[in-house]
Amino acid sequence: MSGAGCEYVVDASGCAAPRLTSLDALQALVDRIVRDLRLKPVGEPQWHVFPEPGGITGLVLLSESHLALHTFPETGFATFNLYHCRAQPAWPWERALAETLGASDVRVRTVERGAIIPSRRV
Amino acid sequence: MSGAGCEYVVDASGCAAPRLTSLDALQALVDRIVRDLRLKPVGEPQWHVFPEPGGITGLVLLSESHLALHTFPETGFATFNLYHCRAQPAWPWERALAETLGASDVRVRTVERGAIIPSRRV
Repeated sequence: MSGAGCEYVVDASGCAAPRLTSLDALQALVDRIVRDLRLKPVGEPQWHVFPEPGGITGLVLLSESHLALHTFPETGFATFNLYHCRAQPAWPWERALAETLGASDVRVRTVERGAIIPSRRV
Repeated sequence: MSGAGCEYVVDASGCAAPRLTSLDALQALVDRIVRDLRLKPVGEPQWHVFPEPGGITGLVLLSESHLALHTFPETGFATFNLYHCRAQPAWPWERALAETLGASDVRVRTVERGAIIPSRRV
């Protein structure tokens, strides 16, 4: 790894609860993100299914940093963090999360990481 | 898990490279954060030591969401993400990272998560 990079902070609301409790659906979504952005997982992703209402957390350790997702079926909400220490990847979060999770509103923010070069501070 | 919560985004620069390549030092730091904030890890933390220059990634799946850290010994830089879906925890990041990693500059930002209640949008 090198550099400090950029983090995508993605909040999706209005999702269909059954999608947010489906480990298969979320694993397929993560596979799609990894494939589309050519990310390089290190080891196996870590998944945890919480007790009722059945939220799911996934953590993927990447050679580029990490991908994390959490789902909250009780509120139809899902969060994603993609921290990427190299070039900033583009991905159609809004469209893809509408398609796969039924999200009605997707908010994508980027957080620049690093405090080495003062001019890069945000 | 419930709610959307808050994420701490912490960037530490000017760190001592030997601390950033020490798995023992970083595991002790994570243990301290977990203990001080009474976080509840789910399963074992995932650690990866990258080849030279020997940066390290740690991912901890929490019942409250996740804790992630990445170190970049080549630039004396380390990043932390603590996503906490419940009450916002306070921790002395600046002092603790100066003590444990020798950080000369610590930038702490908070990112509020969630798009459910419009008035909470940032």
